Amino acid sequence: MADAADTGAAAAPSFPVPTLPAPPVGVVGLGQLGGSLAAALAAAGRPVAGWDVDPAARDAAAARGVVITRELSGVVVLAVPLPAMATALDDLTVAPDATVTDLGSVKRPVFDVLGRTLGGRFVGGHPMCGTERSGYAAVDPGLFTGARWALCLEPDTDLTRWLRVAEVALAVGAEVVPVTTAEHDDAVAAISSVPHLLAAALATAAGRAGPLALSLAAGSFRDGTRVIRSDPAFVTAMVEGNAGPTADALARVQQQLARPWPELVADGHAVATRPQTRRTVRVPLDRIALLALGRAGGAVTRRLAAFVEGWVPEAA
Amino acid sequence: MADAADTGAAAAPSFPVPTLPAPPVGVVGLGQLGGSLAAALAAAGRPVAGWDVDPAARDAAAARGVVITRELSGVVVLAVPLPAMATALDDLTVAPDATVTDLGSVKRPVFDVLGRTLGGRFVGGHPMCGTERSGYAAVDPGLFTGARWALCLEPDTDLTRWLRVAEVALAVGAEVVPVTTAEHDDAVAAISSVPHLLAAALATAAGRAGPLALSLAAGSFRDGTRVIRSDPAFVTAMVEGNAGPTADALARVQQQLARPWPELVADGHAVATRPQTRRTVRVPLDRIALLALGRAGGAVTRRLAAFVEGWVPEAA
Repeated sequence: MADAADTGAAAAPSFPVPTLPAPPVGVVGLGQLGGSLAAALAAAGRPVAGWDVDPAARDAAAARGVVITRELSGVVVLAVPLPAMATALDDLTVAPDATVTDLGSVKRPVFDVLGRTLGGRFVGGHPMCGTERSGYAAVDPGLFTGARWALCLEPDTDLTRWLRVAEVALAVGAEVVPVTTAEHDDAVAAISSVPHLLAAALATAAGRAGPLALSLAAGSFRDGTRVIRSDPAFVTAMVEGNAGPTADALARVQQQLARPWPELVADGHAVATRPQTRRTVRVPLDRIALLALGRAGGAVTRRLAAFVEGWVPEAA
Repeated sequence: MADAADTGAAAAPSFPVPTLPAPPVGVVGLGQLGGSLAAALAAAGRPVAGWDVDPAARDAAAARGVVITRELSGVVVLAVPLPAMATALDDLTVAPDATVTDLGSVKRPVFDVLGRTLGGRFVGGHPMCGTERSGYAAVDPGLFTGARWALCLEPDTDLTRWLRVAEVALAVGAEVVPVTTAEHDDAVAAISSVPHLLAAALATAAGRAGPLALSLAAGSFRDGTRVIRSDPAFVTAMVEGNAGPTADALARVQQQLARPWPELVADGHAVATRPQTRRTVRVPLDRIALLALGRAGGAVTRRLAAFVEGWVPEAA
């Protein structure tokens, strides 16, 4: 955390300054994630437009105050499944100076497609929330409250545009974690892709063990398999779109499984129950400093004029 | 399900007949499981006695209507950690005709110790509930409602005593799954021991991946690691006390992990989301018929005079 300045109290004005309106937000895809984001922004009184190929999803969003239109500007958020990212903007009109971000669970393939066409106008993002439910019926304006929202800072990312997207995430209650695309994909392999694969393997193995085992299945099994109730197409796109890091992370879990069980159980318990305390920090508006905050396990919670405010975990 | 008679309506009297009082229950160990069982029975107006080496656990149980005593009779329930099973009755006075059962998460080691000394008076049991919390502060009289309660039927198990223990489980809202000791331990390896080991491996691997990964950890990771928040001594006793079946079940999960991911994800999703419907059945009071009910994924929900009533899962 050498780059995160711990300045203590400071009297910087909060941003955006009240006289500058927040940029409009346009959401493409109004399912669980996109619909929840649009609904949360609309509920906060912010101008939010949106589009979905499904008329029912459009109607549901309109009922929550989202302006349904194919013309989007400001911060344009792609909230579509990974395989649809490349073509999500095809039938829409996007303002030439709009900043484009996405909510996809893997960042490298999205960056390869959209970073190439949009250049510095694209900022990859991934809010770490959502449930095993999906679609507009699962919309919840409180979905992002307290969630981490990874936001990619590549060497050529325009910091002003990054801050604009970060401000949208902060506005719906998320905490922004600055990451590189590669760091994001490695982390997500370990904490999301592999848990989904383990859950699938647990379920199929128990299924083969027969009806007795499944009928005895209680809390530990339900907890361990819950995530594989998610849409299989979503899970497959996530693991296949991040195959290398996922294979590496799975191999590391299998190495752990080869350890003596009492040792493994004690260490796993220690990680899972580690107390989490936080220390408030202020970080300059600088890519290196922001990435250092993310690597330390911290997050941005507030944008101020010349820096951001956030926190880092502290040893208990 | 050849042995489970599906008799449809029948006009048998319910058991126990009101003029016969339910046998008293004595609970040894008044932590989360034992304390919850004693509290649930006391709340139902049944005579329940109990003992715990910890005075605070005794006081908490007494406040819920449990008679604190070292003299136990009727159905005596050992609700102590696995390593303490062999000596749990050492300082207590147990009526010579008492039926002894236990709530341990592995059945072979308990049967080897208590079956040897108590013979047909011992009936091994395992309610599939409990949370990652433990101790008398985690007591919940509703803990067993709707839970499966495995109850071992070995070739020399006294069926009358088995039914007496089953009746205690039914009285607190559980559904009784008749199993052999070996079947129980195989099933528990697949649905409980392995999930605990996977959770531990997931947590330790993510812990080694560093603060960024842990700070991004969201729902799938929390679900996948929740069970390893349990007391490590409990988890270690469970996996080490059932080492053979656990190693076999873990190997089967690892075989699943070697399958192509899209296939694995689709199959895992199918198992985890399989609709569960039930068909009511009546089963004669016969070891073979009862075990067939358990193997079919069914459970006993009611004791009637000449048979038990229960259910089996039905293909959707």
